[in-house]
Amino acid sequence: MKFKELDRLFNPRSVALIGASATPGKWGYHVLFNILKADFSGQVHAVNPKGGSVLGMECRRSLSEVPGAVDLAVITTPAPTVLNLIEECGRKGVKHAVVITSDFSETGAEGARMERELVAKARKYGMRLVGPNTMGIYSAKSNLHALLPPVMPRHGGLSMFSQSGNVGVQMLYWGNNKGVGFEKFVSSGNEGDLKCEDYLRYFADDEATRVIIAYMEGLDPDSALYPVAHAVSHKKPILIFKGGRTDTGGKAAASHSGAMACSSKVLRAAFHQAGIIEVEDSQELMDCASLLAVYPIPQGKRVGILTRGGGWGVITADACEEQGLVVPKLPDRIIDRLNKILPQFWSHGNPVDMAATLGAQPYLDCMETLAHWDGVDSIIALGGSLAEAFDVAPKGNGSKEIKDAERLMELLKGEIEKESELVVRHMRQLVADTGKPIISVSITGAEMDGSDPDQSGIVAYPTPERAVRVLKHMINYHDYLKLRKAA
Amino acid sequence: MKFKELDRLFNPRSVALIGASATPGKWGYHVLFNILKADFSGQVHAVNPKGGSVLGMECRRSLSEVPGAVDLAVITTPAPTVLNLIEECGRKGVKHAVVITSDFSETGAEGARMERELVAKARKYGMRLVGPNTMGIYSAKSNLHALLPPVMPRHGGLSMFSQSGNVGVQMLYWGNNKGVGFEKFVSSGNEGDLKCEDYLRYFADDEATRVIIAYMEGLDPDSALYPVAHAVSHKKPILIFKGGRTDTGGKAAASHSGAMACSSKVLRAAFHQAGIIEVEDSQELMDCASLLAVYPIPQGKRVGILTRGGGWGVITADACEEQGLVVPKLPDRIIDRLNKILPQFWSHGNPVDMAATLGAQPYLDCMETLAHWDGVDSIIALGGSLAEAFDVAPKGNGSKEIKDAERLMELLKGEIEKESELVVRHMRQLVADTGKPIISVSITGAEMDGSDPDQSGIVAYPTPERAVRVLKHMINYHDYLKLRKAA
Repeated sequence: MKFKELDRLFNPRSVALIGASATPGKWGYHVLFNILKADFSGQVHAVNPKGGSVLGMECRRSLSEVPGAVDLAVITTPAPTVLNLIEECGRKGVKHAVVITSDFSETGAEGARMERELVAKARKYGMRLVGPNTMGIYSAKSNLHALLPPVMPRHGGLSMFSQSGNVGVQMLYWGNNKGVGFEKFVSSGNEGDLKCEDYLRYFADDEATRVIIAYMEGLDPDSALYPVAHAVSHKKPILIFKGGRTDTGGKAAASHSGAMACSSKVLRAAFHQAGIIEVEDSQELMDCASLLAVYPIPQGKRVGILTRGGGWGVITADACEEQGLVVPKLPDRIIDRLNKILPQFWSHGNPVDMAATLGAQPYLDCMETLAHWDGVDSIIALGGSLAEAFDVAPKGNGSKEIKDAERLMELLKGEIEKESELVVRHMRQLVADTGKPIISVSITGAEMDGSDPDQSGIVAYPTPERAVRVLKHMINYHDYLKLRKAA
Repeated sequence: MKFKELDRLFNPRSVALIGASATPGKWGYHVLFNILKADFSGQVHAVNPKGGSVLGMECRRSLSEVPGAVDLAVITTPAPTVLNLIEECGRKGVKHAVVITSDFSETGAEGARMERELVAKARKYGMRLVGPNTMGIYSAKSNLHALLPPVMPRHGGLSMFSQSGNVGVQMLYWGNNKGVGFEKFVSSGNEGDLKCEDYLRYFADDEATRVIIAYMEGLDPDSALYPVAHAVSHKKPILIFKGGRTDTGGKAAASHSGAMACSSKVLRAAFHQAGIIEVEDSQELMDCASLLAVYPIPQGKRVGILTRGGGWGVITADACEEQGLVVPKLPDRIIDRLNKILPQFWSHGNPVDMAATLGAQPYLDCMETLAHWDGVDSIIALGGSLAEAFDVAPKGNGSKEIKDAERLMELLKGEIEKESELVVRHMRQLVADTGKPIISVSITGAEMDGSDPDQSGIVAYPTPERAVRVLKHMINYHDYLKLRKAA
């Protein structure tokens, strides 16, 4: 399949919503609402046999009444009606259909038969289908939000295919919450026609896609996905979260998407060979995606740790060793340089424990010294932003003097916020200058700490352990790339 | 040591801040500010040799000028001044001192000598010391916030001792962010006098403390902590996060708190024998603490999984098997009951995949059926609150009809929010009725999802994997309790 073919699916010039409904709660209402709200760049048409008006749009009674060409049909009507609609689409010259409708192969043999009929009909006209049983597709490039759930994804560099609509859509929410956006998304549904490997190939060639992520359930060792992944993975990172790794999960997957269970050991080997970064935790999926979206990949496993508090340095060092990373000793020349920045009682080692030294400048000076040292490949920097730590909420029962002090504390918080901006700017520059990822760990453990990687260019996690787990994946990926280059 | 002795430390009738300062940035300013802002229930005195006024309080030139008895002295003046102040405290009949001041044993041999002097002096007068080199203490009962950092802990059932001030204080922030509060807190500092086991013993006897948590670095296998923990752990859960488990972390700990490294295998055995719940991840520490704060402990490893979306059921099932939990098959009678609630195409198994059935009532009916089934010991319920999923932010460029639809969506969100309150109320009741923990997993992956365990009585995590890891710890603890009861 050529790039252009699927590009017309994600960036159509015109879309017809077949099953448009004026009734909130109906799929044909919500999908149309999302398309209109997101301000799709092409033409939109609404189709409903009863006519009337939906969300300010006049409904055509059938697709044939729609004037001009239609690139994409989105179908939300009940399963028994879909076959005829595909026929109509074919006759109209529609090139792609997203069949949101469920009750096909996921429900058993009769549904599977109906699904095969749909696909055969589409093939007759050279049409390609997404789904059936999908939550829809999304493309930032053309503002196409042909999605069922009430989510407005943030635009960014990730593209995702998901064999679970739910899991996929939730990653869109997570992206909104964590400040890392999506370029394209498809809930691949039953994959009656278009399959994961087709989307993977398309995302690989799509320039706006920087990172490919996926949730999959059905994936056996001879899947067509592997050769495609192998052809892509050295150019663009592919993160896959595989559900159904265990007997218990495999049984659940069989009931959910009909996926066959496969030993996780066999799968892991196949993933590794194809250069796929496999994650086994939903949080890790988005943590890894955030880093890949904005940072270079570390060129080795040596980590520099910078911390304002000793305990967090210890915790980070433990996590590094447990995940197979190395926390190298500081050479004398680096110690000498840090001696000039820090008070006498700093740790004199890695982790660089600043021994409660406050202020942005010494923090940045230490970071710069570490980042430019050729002995480390990445840095974990703890406690960079202190502003969040200032709890300035007035208790409301204080004396005049306490109220004055509260205002003063608020000013102080403002000052430190300004310093934080300086830290972020400087970190971003250091990452660019050194090519080393510098991961920030916030002080309050807040998940939504405003780190906003897409905006700030800085990746932050609420705990150092999460930073370390992401680094482990990145280093494995780096090792893969190195081996492949050498081969 | 008797309970009463330390109770006077945490709940003194009067506090004197020695080193009170009118200069923001000085420790003597911030600690006094926190004490005054939090509205300490007893009397507060400020002491500074220069006199004057600090935060609206007249400063006494010395402790001897303070009228009446002083239960607790908090000292922030430089290290060389502290010995004389302890002498003054002793003469005044002060029973406890919190020595915030650093530059003692953590800096080397001379500091260690000074620290021994301090302790000897205090002993002479029957005084007990917290620290030196501590970030302070906190008690919800008497609103005592004798803390250095600008944090106002939320009141609740956790009590913590921490050998790292930084790590400890950040747990207070995390508690604020996650909606689980603290009853007491102590940054134990260098533990020149009072030691972890003393605090542990006190928290054990403190009725308001429901869960004891700790961060520790120095802990060898013959520590006095173990017998104390053993005497407590079957009555009150003790969660310990041990830093310095690895060689790398151990070296960092030696430099930070002077703790000696100890093989994690030996430690793990000692923890287990004492009934301590050991966590090895900062996020897991607070995740476990949240559950213990409000829920009963599961009586076994059988988990019922309720989900609105199939993929999340698969992910949860995988995590259960990987952590050694069991996802039992549903018997026919439970399937029959669920058939009456759910549409034909639900999963007919555990995970109970509701196959996109919306609405609060069927969700609650399924939950009730699962919770009352004697085949499971706990429940993980995914996607209970759908309200957060509604992204109702207007895009600002819509037609009148789209704006109307946006308002409608906002109303719908409001309706679903009301339903969510119903879900929370019902879940809480079900937990009370069945004695089984029912863990909610939010749909948007937001960390601060308003689950607010202290307020709602419901424990929620952003991912099912985190719920499963907590359950694993709880089940190990339950097994320990069972064995101990049998012995």
